[in-house]
Amino acid sequence: MEPTTLQAWQERIDALFGAKDRRRGTAGNFMWFLEEVGELSAALRAETLAEQTLEFADVLAWLMSLANGAGVDLDAALREKYGSGCPRCRLVPCNCAVGDKP
Amino acid sequence: MEPTTLQAWQERIDALFGAKDRRRGTAGNFMWFLEEVGELSAALRAETLAEQTLEFADVLAWLMSLANGAGVDLDAALREKYGSGCPRCRLVPCNCAVGDKP
Repeated sequence: MEPTTLQAWQERIDALFGAKDRRRGTAGNFMWFLEEVGELSAALRAETLAEQTLEFADVLAWLMSLANGAGVDLDAALREKYGSGCPRCRLVPCNCAVGDKP
Repeated sequence: MEPTTLQAWQERIDALFGAKDRRRGTAGNFMWFLEEVGELSAALRAETLAEQTLEFADVLAWLMSLANGAGVDLDAALREKYGSGCPRCRLVPCNCAVGDKP
């Protein structure tokens, strides 16, 4: 199957969960997001690739719910921040020191 | 500009930061990810759409770094979990109770 655009995924998550997400509101959605972040942490520490895969999907879906609620287009956001190389050193690959923020 | 596939964005983040991410390792990358999650929380609470947009980009970029480290294809992960409707009720839009996962 063809890879899907980030924008189409964000719209897909809105079609699936947007109505519930809007009723729940940002703070409630953020709590669900963080619950999944915790599950991802546990999966990265001690679980199989299959389990990690599902936790990544959940974290990303909740991040999309939060972005939908805020009116943020994640594709445009990545393009703005990372579309022209590292936002700090401007290079690809980034040549900043490991401890520096990219 | 055309919307970019999720897979291409994940590869872009790997090209930018993959070498540094691999040296830093999963635990270190997770700490950076959580720092950005905290900044997103602050931005959603009290900052402008422009600031929120950049924080969403940072959280998603670090999530991609973690996925690259784990060998997880985020497009395939979303397809597996959310490609056939809600993973619980199977419907689009989801018809689960608001308090139910997901």
